[in-house]
Amino acid sequence: MSLDVFSAKRHDGLTTIEPKKTAVIVVDMLNDFCKPGGKMVLPGCEKLVPPQLQVIDAARASGAAIIWLLDTHRANVRQDREFLKRTPHCIENTWGAQVIDDLQARPDDVYVIKRRFSGFFNTDLDLTLKDLGAESVIVFGVVTNICVRSTVHDAFFHGYNVVVPEDCCAATGAREQASSLYDIGTHFGTVSDAASVAAALLQGTPIRNKEAA
Amino acid sequence: MSLDVFSAKRHDGLTTIEPKKTAVIVVDMLNDFCKPGGKMVLPGCEKLVPPQLQVIDAARASGAAIIWLLDTHRANVRQDREFLKRTPHCIENTWGAQVIDDLQARPDDVYVIKRRFSGFFNTDLDLTLKDLGAESVIVFGVVTNICVRSTVHDAFFHGYNVVVPEDCCAATGAREQASSLYDIGTHFGTVSDAASVAAALLQGTPIRNKEAA
Amino acid sequence: MSLDVFSAKRHDGLTTIEPKKTAVIVVDMLNDFCKPGGKMVLPGCEKLVPPQLQVIDAARASGAAIIWLLDTHRANVRQDREFLKRTPHCIENTWGAQVIDDLQARPDDVYVIKRRFSGFFNTDLDLTLKDLGAESVIVFGVVTNICVRSTVHDAFFHGYNVVVPEDCCAATGAREQASSLYDIGTHFGTVSDAASVAAALLQGTPIRNKEAA
Amino acid sequence: MSLDVFSAKRHDGLTTIEPKKTAVIVVDMLNDFCKPGGKMVLPGCEKLVPPQLQVIDAARASGAAIIWLLDTHRANVRQDREFLKRTPHCIENTWGAQVIDDLQARPDDVYVIKRRFSGFFNTDLDLTLKDLGAESVIVFGVVTNICVRSTVHDAFFHGYNVVVPEDCCAATGAREQASSLYDIGTHFGTVSDAASVAAALLQGTPIRNKEAA
Repeated sequence: MSLDVFSAKRHDGLTTIEPKKTAVIVVDMLNDFCKPGGKMVLPGCEKLVPPQLQVIDAARASGAAIIWLLDTHRANVRQDREFLKRTPHCIENTWGAQVIDDLQARPDDVYVIKRRFSGFFNTDLDLTLKDLGAESVIVFGVVTNICVRSTVHDAFFHGYNVVVPEDCCAATGAREQASSLYDIGTHFGTVSDAASVAAALLQGTPIRNKEAA
Repeated sequence: MSLDVFSAKRHDGLTTIEPKKTAVIVVDMLNDFCKPGGKMVLPGCEKLVPPQLQVIDAARASGAAIIWLLDTHRANVRQDREFLKRTPHCIENTWGAQVIDDLQARPDDVYVIKRRFSGFFNTDLDLTLKDLGAESVIVFGVVTNICVRSTVHDAFFHGYNVVVPEDCCAATGAREQASSLYDIGTHFGTVSDAASVAAALLQGTPIRNKEAA
Repeated sequence: MSLDVFSAKRHDGLTTIEPKKTAVIVVDMLNDFCKPGGKMVLPGCEKLVPPQLQVIDAARASGAAIIWLLDTHRANVRQDREFLKRTPHCIENTWGAQVIDDLQARPDDVYVIKRRFSGFFNTDLDLTLKDLGAESVIVFGVVTNICVRSTVHDAFFHGYNVVVPEDCCAATGAREQASSLYDIGTHFGTVSDAASVAAALLQGTPIRNKEAA
Repeated sequence: MSLDVFSAKRHDGLTTIEPKKTAVIVVDMLNDFCKPGGKMVLPGCEKLVPPQLQVIDAARASGAAIIWLLDTHRANVRQDREFLKRTPHCIENTWGAQVIDDLQARPDDVYVIKRRFSGFFNTDLDLTLKDLGAESVIVFGVVTNICVRSTVHDAFFHGYNVVVPEDCCAATGAREQASSLYDIGTHFGTVSDAASVAAALLQGTPIRNKEAA
């Protein structure tokens, strides 16, 4: 066997996605991170909603799966490792751990609970993607440089084709937004925007990587 | 460094457990497996309840954690790999996926949802055990030769000290009960019974491995 | 979405394999387990060699990948968890950790080092199978009830179609051989024999599950 | 149980490490990344050697373990996922996949082969750390924003106390160095420097987090 089979795909900067083999992964768009009164609110989250809905609506229309990633921490363990560094947040069965109403999550969507930053670490996300038949994942939400990025890392490692629409993501700062998107586009997947991703889902147009080397 | 540090522990056939560093993992004692009207009922499950309660009560009294492992299958994926071999069962949000009332599970116990036979595969069981500070696990439930055993394998691989009280477990047949307990005691952990495990939790007595070589 | 897509496949007791999407996983056919002078020799291993070679030869002729699973323990850690229960064996860079000469392993085959009983636990087996394009795995070697079985569990959990030729496997006892094959055939995959598996690779004939319910 | 046990540790910006429970993880200081003639050379790697040696020497003197993380890609798979985005590099059994001579790796150090950016993904790093008894990890090497950072993510998720000496790390650019160190210090561990880490190993002085919020 030789390695040249896929050399042709390298560095072209374009990817296509097949809706029936695609899952949209919405990362931590939860009250505690996005809404007044939340435990760790990122200012400006509301501007993410329109582009996120554009992708979500295109996914529903084209038959892609919608997965809501829910950062959710247990109240009944001796310690939660993540709280060593961050203030307690998204405690299970609280308002803070729920998806913001603006995004109109539906009961028959797929919900995956996570305990750490990555949506794949000690969760059923990988097996659920397999059971859904997904080969590509569209990942976005908050925050770009921690939970979105950690999830993108693992999605790439696990073998998924990863697309990140940048206008559907917000970071803890402008430098972190730019730096994480650069790393994602050069090493882990394709950086695009909501309009291009929606077009790819609805019309099959290829997606250009804004961060390709 | 040398390997002889722990050679002394080998083959002695005795283990001790510290309740505050121990978790009881109750495997799949769910209506669909145990109660009339369930999807895949194992006859005779009711005889497991008294010894299981003996261990659970000792755990509560001594400060060990109680973890309920819940086989739970999604209704909204394209396929569920496990159903390729077995009839659909334990669908989320159904009676069949609930712990049997006999065992008196409490809301502030720990619940871990699993999608495959092992309680560790693509679940948060390992990180939850770490967050609980657990070093030993007492594993029992149904069925010995599939879900209990798969969970025992992974508990051993992950580094936990594993104890299985045999009278708290039932297999799909007598040969399978004997064979899996033999494999567990010789390769993965310590096989004991409810009375000995309860004594170990309450009085600190060492547990003898019934299947030690 | 509904679950009935794959209901038709259930309980039919037949599977087919595509050689180019298949990997043969040979488990622990190493000097320490199989040859006089080894640390933990299983008597009678030599009778496994002819049927194993029949499958291996058919795999080479049909383009299936050959993966040698190598139980290999580090000499320079403070303790090795597996040695808490078993005598030290298969230490890295020793004769005991090498594949027996009888099986004619080739330098350009794939070798995967494992530290615990399962070939998947903390190894690159899953990603290597993906990089090979494998969807089916043919698993055999020693011993049926521990390392073969642990590997079969995880192969099933990870989504592979698993086939075990029983005459290519030996257990620590007759009851354990029968019991593990029964569990594998009813819950994890297809139990067959070397001749049927070779025919499946060379002629595309379907494989009948000897242990189907 | 309550979560306040570890609240006291939060935000103090100081950590201590116990050498016998610490492992130094040197990430990808390999010829292909660091030396003229390598496949993907990062200019300026040579300036990392003196501070890296300071930490490595302190680790040897104090009894901490040294782990060399080796990015190593198989030559005999149909495709290697990582090469979809990057030029082929660190092929097994080549000069490019060896640790640079400058760092004086020893045969009885621990070597861990990885196939993806993270040292934990489908490798035996986690179980080896457990077998070494490690609770803290000191992580450095190249490149900060990809392989070092991916390894740091997973080390944190797995429960290790993570320390990164910044002068022992280089990124693909100045913005990426600053941004990844900021994310590491605020979310995943402690950012320090070689002198402080060496002092912590040799004299037990606490390490101050340069990036604490």
